[in-house]
Amino acid sequence: MTTMLPVDECQGGITAPQGFLAAGMYCGIRKAKKDIAMIVSEVPATIAGVFTLNKTQAAPIFVDKAQLKKSPFCSAIVVNSGNANACTGERGLNDAWEMVKATAAALNLPEEQVMISSTGVIGQYMPMDKITPAIKQLSAQLHRAGNKDTAEAIMTTDTYPKEVAVKFTLGKSVVTIGGVAKGSGMIAPNMATMLAFITTDIAIGQPLLTKALHIANGKSFNRITVDGDMSTNDMALVLANGKANNAPFSENSEEFQLFVAALEYVMIKLAKMIARDGEGATKLIEIFVKGSKSEEEAAQAAKAIANSNLVKTAIHGTDANWGRILAAVGYSGIDFNPDHVEIAFNELPILKKNYEIVLNEEKAKHTLQQENILITIDLHQGNQSARVWTCDLTKEYVHINASYRS
Amino acid sequence: MTTMLPVDECQGGITAPQGFLAAGMYCGIRKAKKDIAMIVSEVPATIAGVFTLNKTQAAPIFVDKAQLKKSPFCSAIVVNSGNANACTGERGLNDAWEMVKATAAALNLPEEQVMISSTGVIGQYMPMDKITPAIKQLSAQLHRAGNKDTAEAIMTTDTYPKEVAVKFTLGKSVVTIGGVAKGSGMIAPNMATMLAFITTDIAIGQPLLTKALHIANGKSFNRITVDGDMSTNDMALVLANGKANNAPFSENSEEFQLFVAALEYVMIKLAKMIARDGEGATKLIEIFVKGSKSEEEAAQAAKAIANSNLVKTAIHGTDANWGRILAAVGYSGIDFNPDHVEIAFNELPILKKNYEIVLNEEKAKHTLQQENILITIDLHQGNQSARVWTCDLTKEYVHINASYRS
Repeated sequence: MTTMLPVDECQGGITAPQGFLAAGMYCGIRKAKKDIAMIVSEVPATIAGVFTLNKTQAAPIFVDKAQLKKSPFCSAIVVNSGNANACTGERGLNDAWEMVKATAAALNLPEEQVMISSTGVIGQYMPMDKITPAIKQLSAQLHRAGNKDTAEAIMTTDTYPKEVAVKFTLGKSVVTIGGVAKGSGMIAPNMATMLAFITTDIAIGQPLLTKALHIANGKSFNRITVDGDMSTNDMALVLANGKANNAPFSENSEEFQLFVAALEYVMIKLAKMIARDGEGATKLIEIFVKGSKSEEEAAQAAKAIANSNLVKTAIHGTDANWGRILAAVGYSGIDFNPDHVEIAFNELPILKKNYEIVLNEEKAKHTLQQENILITIDLHQGNQSARVWTCDLTKEYVHINASYRS
Repeated sequence: MTTMLPVDECQGGITAPQGFLAAGMYCGIRKAKKDIAMIVSEVPATIAGVFTLNKTQAAPIFVDKAQLKKSPFCSAIVVNSGNANACTGERGLNDAWEMVKATAAALNLPEEQVMISSTGVIGQYMPMDKITPAIKQLSAQLHRAGNKDTAEAIMTTDTYPKEVAVKFTLGKSVVTIGGVAKGSGMIAPNMATMLAFITTDIAIGQPLLTKALHIANGKSFNRITVDGDMSTNDMALVLANGKANNAPFSENSEEFQLFVAALEYVMIKLAKMIARDGEGATKLIEIFVKGSKSEEEAAQAAKAIANSNLVKTAIHGTDANWGRILAAVGYSGIDFNPDHVEIAFNELPILKKNYEIVLNEEKAKHTLQQENILITIDLHQGNQSARVWTCDLTKEYVHINASYRS
């Protein structure tokens, strides 16, 4: 459905929109890969953010929420991987503020225009002796092609960098949106260990930008799950610096709808990359629940399926085990009649109403060997729907997570 | 705590109490193992039952709930493995009632005194041509030592049979309780693919028996989880045939408390066996949350930890990753202050208040190599507590569930 949008994908990720610079480098938090990055807007940008709902929140979450209250503008974001600065108490909070101060000093910015973000191991103090000098170095390395280094620097167990950019026409202006994200374990609905940073040159006020982010987030990052675990550090930030010089628009305008659709496109694309790159994953699984009374109900059922270890291992084993799907809908908490449910894998019908099993084992096995699996569940009790993305559960997931800290 | 009870474990499982007979055999539902069993009380027994909350309910669940409404007494239970008779519609329901009729006919019982139970693959019709004759054969094979064959016949991916029996003194009588259960995937709080059948010779009316079952179930089968998936077929039934000839007692009596404690002992023992025998498991993990404002709150936090794939893989990898535990409490939905939490593994302190990390990696690694892991989380905000049991998440779990149907 998203492919019908009047957006064109383009190169450049977060530095594709006008007026954004970035840099990423290695500073020694991690063993041997890039681990810190900086994203900067040449002019103060309107900012909006969404954060983890986990009650155990990392220091950067506290800091950024406080920053958002101080100013509707942001000029710089610093992000590190390798250390989450979570469960680090007073000292962790001081370290987080120290990152803000160092960035403001290096870039000659008001402190309230700096946001920070961390991902990695929980419960270890930040190596500030490495981070503070790195912030200074990054500020001297900012450039228009810094998107790739940034995308690499924020990775943890991600196996590939995740970025996207699109252009679309808004009145007489061309607007660009860029995005970068990281996964890849602890991904659950309502955010997870995922960070996403979106840049755009659209001119838009903070209230509308916040509204757009919440709408798009509800259809993207809140619709992915890897293992049901919700992280202490998740956030998605969007910066809009106005460089596209578009005319102002209101919430009820076509322009706003178009922007939301384009933002959704970018965020869903990143969300699917995160789901596909779940730890140990070999497949991207899209759960499409339709025929529901409400979108919320569809999403609730789809999330139960997406979080089922039994469904995820069955898909991994190319086993068309529709019974586990029906069982998951059954405990999802929604009201429905199992007799009316129909299930298909990649458009191949498996189950028709009244438990008529139309499964062709050979064809099912064949279609489940694909890398992208679409599971469609029709509840036949309304006309609403929702999509949720996840990945298969593999031995490699266990391997990665049984030895993450070491 | 349970070891301080005045109960003595004894041999004999479900046929240890007076007046119970059982038999188990192979009838061809499964490939090459026992797959059907019968448990019989020589005199009509008071019955109580608890059933899955999954909205996708198997045919035997419908049948047994209807039976419970018709009569407070039960004389026979027939159980098969290999086929769950779930998602089988009208025909499945007819097959389930046919099992009731065949059992009543074979044993010359009123139909309303028969309960049935099925576990195994979802969405396949029951091979009634094998089951009906088997029921007749079983009725001729009932004997006092039939507990072992029964325990084997109800296993699915369980790696060992699960049974227990205890004796305790009630006034001038000796009361015996026996139990048999099966796991071992799809085990979640609020029941799961688990079946449990409890027999006792206590004399007790149905209202009190139901009350006792609900109390004990809340502390045992509703406190275990293997993968968070809740099955369509779960049930726990308890039969009390009065053969112990104890004097009547009321709900507020010491006798009732003693019976509940003994029933809890039996059911917790079975619950722990189920958790330990989770698919692919190598360890039993007990999550003990204390210092909470209520037992419900403690259970809610403990279940979030027990369902965390990240925690379960970390324990598998002998990684004292307390951050994942704190993150799980954080998204459990309870209100708490992360700064006050203390965590210990097998009595070895790992985290003290205000994130003081007292973790000794070497000692932690050593204690986590044990087969039984106790994780204690002290919330320091009250004096209530709860225990939940689970197992580690292993590559073998993925292996088993990626190929279950084939």
